[in-house]
Amino acid sequence: MFLTDIMKKLDEKKDRIIEIRRHLHAHPELSFHEEQTAAYIADFYKEVPVDSVERNFGGGNGVVVTIKGAKPGKTIAIRADFDALPITEETGLPFASESKGVMHACGHDGHTAYMLILAQSMAELKDQLAGIIKVIHQPAEETPPGGAIGMIKAGVLDGVDAIFGIHVMSPMETGKIYYRSGNTQTGRSYFKLHIQGKGGHGSSPHMANDAIVAASSFVMNCQTIVSRRINPFDTASITIGSFDGKGSFNVIKDAVTLEGDVRTMSKESRQKVEEQVRQFAEGLEVSYGVKVTLDYTNDYPVLYNDPEVTEQVHQALEKASIPEVDAVLETEPQPPSEDFAYYLKQVPGCFFYVGAMPESREWYPHHHPKFDINEKSLIICAKAMAAVVAAYCTS
Amino acid sequence: MFLTDIMKKLDEKKDRIIEIRRHLHAHPELSFHEEQTAAYIADFYKEVPVDSVERNFGGGNGVVVTIKGAKPGKTIAIRADFDALPITEETGLPFASESKGVMHACGHDGHTAYMLILAQSMAELKDQLAGIIKVIHQPAEETPPGGAIGMIKAGVLDGVDAIFGIHVMSPMETGKIYYRSGNTQTGRSYFKLHIQGKGGHGSSPHMANDAIVAASSFVMNCQTIVSRRINPFDTASITIGSFDGKGSFNVIKDAVTLEGDVRTMSKESRQKVEEQVRQFAEGLEVSYGVKVTLDYTNDYPVLYNDPEVTEQVHQALEKASIPEVDAVLETEPQPPSEDFAYYLKQVPGCFFYVGAMPESREWYPHHHPKFDINEKSLIICAKAMAAVVAAYCTS
Amino acid sequence: MFLTDIMKKLDEKKDRIIEIRRHLHAHPELSFHEEQTAAYIADFYKEVPVDSVERNFGGGNGVVVTIKGAKPGKTIAIRADFDALPITEETGLPFASESKGVMHACGHDGHTAYMLILAQSMAELKDQLAGIIKVIHQPAEETPPGGAIGMIKAGVLDGVDAIFGIHVMSPMETGKIYYRSGNTQTGRSYFKLHIQGKGGHGSSPHMANDAIVAASSFVMNCQTIVSRRINPFDTASITIGSFDGKGSFNVIKDAVTLEGDVRTMSKESRQKVEEQVRQFAEGLEVSYGVKVTLDYTNDYPVLYNDPEVTEQVHQALEKASIPEVDAVLETEPQPPSEDFAYYLKQVPGCFFYVGAMPESREWYPHHHPKFDINEKSLIICAKAMAAVVAAYCTS
Amino acid sequence: MFLTDIMKKLDEKKDRIIEIRRHLHAHPELSFHEEQTAAYIADFYKEVPVDSVERNFGGGNGVVVTIKGAKPGKTIAIRADFDALPITEETGLPFASESKGVMHACGHDGHTAYMLILAQSMAELKDQLAGIIKVIHQPAEETPPGGAIGMIKAGVLDGVDAIFGIHVMSPMETGKIYYRSGNTQTGRSYFKLHIQGKGGHGSSPHMANDAIVAASSFVMNCQTIVSRRINPFDTASITIGSFDGKGSFNVIKDAVTLEGDVRTMSKESRQKVEEQVRQFAEGLEVSYGVKVTLDYTNDYPVLYNDPEVTEQVHQALEKASIPEVDAVLETEPQPPSEDFAYYLKQVPGCFFYVGAMPESREWYPHHHPKFDINEKSLIICAKAMAAVVAAYCTS
Repeated sequence: MFLTDIMKKLDEKKDRIIEIRRHLHAHPELSFHEEQTAAYIADFYKEVPVDSVERNFGGGNGVVVTIKGAKPGKTIAIRADFDALPITEETGLPFASESKGVMHACGHDGHTAYMLILAQSMAELKDQLAGIIKVIHQPAEETPPGGAIGMIKAGVLDGVDAIFGIHVMSPMETGKIYYRSGNTQTGRSYFKLHIQGKGGHGSSPHMANDAIVAASSFVMNCQTIVSRRINPFDTASITIGSFDGKGSFNVIKDAVTLEGDVRTMSKESRQKVEEQVRQFAEGLEVSYGVKVTLDYTNDYPVLYNDPEVTEQVHQALEKASIPEVDAVLETEPQPPSEDFAYYLKQVPGCFFYVGAMPESREWYPHHHPKFDINEKSLIICAKAMAAVVAAYCTS
Repeated sequence: MFLTDIMKKLDEKKDRIIEIRRHLHAHPELSFHEEQTAAYIADFYKEVPVDSVERNFGGGNGVVVTIKGAKPGKTIAIRADFDALPITEETGLPFASESKGVMHACGHDGHTAYMLILAQSMAELKDQLAGIIKVIHQPAEETPPGGAIGMIKAGVLDGVDAIFGIHVMSPMETGKIYYRSGNTQTGRSYFKLHIQGKGGHGSSPHMANDAIVAASSFVMNCQTIVSRRINPFDTASITIGSFDGKGSFNVIKDAVTLEGDVRTMSKESRQKVEEQVRQFAEGLEVSYGVKVTLDYTNDYPVLYNDPEVTEQVHQALEKASIPEVDAVLETEPQPPSEDFAYYLKQVPGCFFYVGAMPESREWYPHHHPKFDINEKSLIICAKAMAAVVAAYCTS
Repeated sequence: MFLTDIMKKLDEKKDRIIEIRRHLHAHPELSFHEEQTAAYIADFYKEVPVDSVERNFGGGNGVVVTIKGAKPGKTIAIRADFDALPITEETGLPFASESKGVMHACGHDGHTAYMLILAQSMAELKDQLAGIIKVIHQPAEETPPGGAIGMIKAGVLDGVDAIFGIHVMSPMETGKIYYRSGNTQTGRSYFKLHIQGKGGHGSSPHMANDAIVAASSFVMNCQTIVSRRINPFDTASITIGSFDGKGSFNVIKDAVTLEGDVRTMSKESRQKVEEQVRQFAEGLEVSYGVKVTLDYTNDYPVLYNDPEVTEQVHQALEKASIPEVDAVLETEPQPPSEDFAYYLKQVPGCFFYVGAMPESREWYPHHHPKFDINEKSLIICAKAMAAVVAAYCTS
Repeated sequence: MFLTDIMKKLDEKKDRIIEIRRHLHAHPELSFHEEQTAAYIADFYKEVPVDSVERNFGGGNGVVVTIKGAKPGKTIAIRADFDALPITEETGLPFASESKGVMHACGHDGHTAYMLILAQSMAELKDQLAGIIKVIHQPAEETPPGGAIGMIKAGVLDGVDAIFGIHVMSPMETGKIYYRSGNTQTGRSYFKLHIQGKGGHGSSPHMANDAIVAASSFVMNCQTIVSRRINPFDTASITIGSFDGKGSFNVIKDAVTLEGDVRTMSKESRQKVEEQVRQFAEGLEVSYGVKVTLDYTNDYPVLYNDPEVTEQVHQALEKASIPEVDAVLETEPQPPSEDFAYYLKQVPGCFFYVGAMPESREWYPHHHPKFDINEKSLIICAKAMAAVVAAYCTS
């Protein structure tokens, strides 16, 4: 039996997962610059009986590994990301980042570690598998436009029937797995609005056109988008995180640049927000006589887990009775955005969550300089994904 | 000597001025409805040796009286208004309004009273006069579009070289005359903005378009006109006096009507305010997707006293050494608007002020239900205007 | 078998349900004034073998009917409301409202009609029942503070183990029943904010304190509550439906009254909105020097369906295999508020929905002058509630 | 005759004025750092028969020179400032600044040049003078708190009856002198408002407190000060010239610092603005739950020319019939602030303006990198101030 056998293999290699994770943790690389990590991954597969290893997939640092089962069946993809963040680590861990200002503060080191060992184990058992498993080692999840989009364009999903991914979660208890059907993580949009007024002396406002006043009016107007344009039962958040209007106190500011972040949970709300931000920008020109330039980018889409696939994942996880797992639970939607959403726009699939809260229960949020995971979560990731593979690729 | 003789005549008739004023005070009529007052004025002239009395001048209630001097000279116009206000009098005077809800609360009764007696006196002395004096009894000063504009269209200023008018002023001390050269009283504009959104249930804002929010944004935007568009050394005031948005608390308001009042002291500011209100109205459509209808009317212009003529008035008043007058002083600009400004756009002239503060010094502002004047101011009006006439129409 | 027998009885009496509904529809009465309807209900029970009929329950128009089963068991309550709305009917139905300006535009006529016949049928079969069934005929659902609260204070829920209610829904297809677990309908709050500034003349704003400007600032501030204070994954809506600021265009408005409606889906959001509205009101005093009076009332709470009970209802409806029902489905949360929520704060229960879209599929929303229901939905209501009763009160 | 003699002396030395001005222009020094310029001034007086030269007056770079007339009389002060600005000169003049980034872009070089030659000439003619003349060479006019205040504290005005100063004006035609009675240049205030909210992730606004939204609300509120709190016939301007809110687009901004400039023309408006800014800052804490720190400084006061003294200056200038002067005219109030205003709060005096528009009539505003003056204005300054001295200090 594949499931029994792979669980056994994973148990045998679980210390190796931790070793790999610690190595990666000590050597983080920023999005789009993960050359060493990609080489490390490719090297790993040298001794592993996989069917192919494609490096620099789509021109980036992606590595795609194919494992062909002995029997015909479905083609599934499983994905782990491996980029790090521009954060200075403050964990004090013995294997803390050796690269100043760069840190694995989101758990991608763990994702890659479990995935390598899972792939190795599956390759060793491919006689028991039906169908094809594509292991996607994806770079650049953290930084738009993200690594997924390039790999998709390069054909990574060709022939794929379903795709799966896991994120370890420091705020969720270790021993619990969470899933959600439908819209699960927010989509993200980004905008930059340059407002060009006309400078002048503070004592002669009528000779100038105050960009700070126009920009402040825009900020206030934007509050009405969530309050009046979005279905109260839907989700949207608009943050103007940057109001670049520093100047001399007695000089009327000639120009201001605003930068904003938009989170939505539906296509309707995403469109509505964009439409309304554009209207307010245009309205600012009409109302205040300023010139505006608006760059509006719809970034990572809403992450949509196919309900049928998600239910299959749920069932597979329940049936696997993984000893390290206490419960498989439905979760609330998750605020962050995730470029796994791009895959899910192409093929059905499910992105789910493995609790990784430290033993001490003192956890730091993702992207925090003291972020850490409970390494016990990594064997759970491997076994959980094995259970999903088993459900799809064993006959 | 004309000046000596007319002063004597006026002194003789000064009780009559008060009698007339009290009669008019007891019988006030609203703007454009001053039929009885016009008849009273016309009747007065029946026994007076004036050269002509034209009733219903220009189709309204205006009465124009011509007095021709024995010798050739300039043609000047002197104007008194005679309409009252929709105010319920609370003075408790024995001669208080007998017409409920209508009141002479601005002193026009006094203007007409002194003017009748002055005209009579001048007519009796016309042998000593040079040139022509047109006495303009003007209706409807209080209510836009005002009575002046119609009389001008009907030719009241034809051949007129200069025009003069007086306003009694309850906040100014009796015994003092005030004048100002250049821009002296504000111009006025009026606007009405209908904002059409879309109604809906309070729990579903995304199905509606909240007109109250759009209108509130417009009100806030309008504050930036005076603060950022007008020269700080110029004068402008924009009041949105009516925000008609009463509705049911839990129904999103479909439409709101705003009404606003604009005061300015220069053509530039008048134009700038109109331009900016129009931009904000248009910007509201773009920003909030509402439909707006804006009616913007430039009403009474800025009242501009010709500097040369004003200096002549000043000199004439000084030289006349009127015993009841302590001082002839320059005044600050006056906030209210006045349709005398229309005459001054056609011919040079001067509109000046006669202090009328009650003896008690407890005064009420014009348009107040307890407004009253010191009747001693009326003989001062008559003598002051006589002095001006003397300066222009005696050789 | 109770379930089989009652279904048969209901089928026999289904025309009677429609007759009753039409009678009630023609004779609507406003909340707290439903004397005739209450009398009609009480009359109905005269010939019905129920155990007690209590009129004027709690001092209002409520009627509470008790049916005791032959065997001991649980006590459950089932509720139907019977008040109408201040709306002028435009349906053109032969049985349209005979009371001008009052209309059953929310389906309460149907609720009462099915409930009377269901109660009658149950009473006739009480030998087969275990436990006690309290039928709550509740007045005044439409108008805060609502009829439920008074009946609860008067003890209507004493000894009750669970409570159930149904709403017919014109936007939901006839033949479908919808349920939802947890927070299901919004809670509602109401506020009235009086802002006292100081009146004055439009040309002298510095002598006044413009209440329209202060109120507009408050409206804009309030938009930030939903946009910045509420969890984007939670639900809140704040509508200022009334901005009572009509005045004269050139007079600075001395006072404005705002009225607002708040909808929330959690206690946290309800509290947060109240707290923030209070802060903005207080901040207005500090910022603008106005005096404010804020009346803030937390009205109908969030309607919370107990998950366990809801699942039992779901199962009961599925198992009943009602021939007129195509599907029993989970629904999205519902925007309106409902005073059934008060019962659910005291005892567990479930409030669920029966589709009532007209055959033509041209439906009008609840509270619309052309609102109507498909009368076929009424037998579904009766049978669905019978199924629930059967699940609880048969052994 | 003093007046005739000094005019002659000044004519003889007029090229020397230009030489000095060019030397100073080439060697500008910033406010509070004018050591070389002060030394140059003091050196100049070594060969001049003045009665005293006090260096480092009041601990700064000020130089005070006393010239005692032969006869007793009034004590008057005449002031010239000598600091430069942090501007990179772009005039291309042969004598352009040799100090990179520092420039005499306001004409203080010219003020000092004429004053030195005037002082020399007066000293040479002191037998003809009555009373005492204090020549105040003042540093640091451009930078608050300004140089005047320190010199006043050190007693520079002790025993002074009146004080006079001149500013050359590039926008005013050369050959014209301008004066104004009463409030003539704006007073200035400055404020810095730090708004401390709470940072957070853009997708979770309810966990943060957005400082950009609070600050934008403050900016909009501030617009109502000029629009609603200030007499429309008075002057006020409030500019928030700096909105320091640059951050990461998707991080809710934790803190913002605003800096503002206030100009007023009356004590009432100055107080009203301060009071209202303080209220809005405090109101922001109440409304938005942020913490604010407000530093509000009332800087240079309104410059008030004593009407009687100003009329004497006017008469003196008219009577002097300076050949280079076409006209002596009244001017509008001037927007900039000037620390000469501090002297005028202690003793009566007059600060007036000498036109210095370049021959070409292509002029650049003060503080512009291409600012220049017509050097012909300098002899006019000298002669005009000589005329004023003559009027006060000849018997």
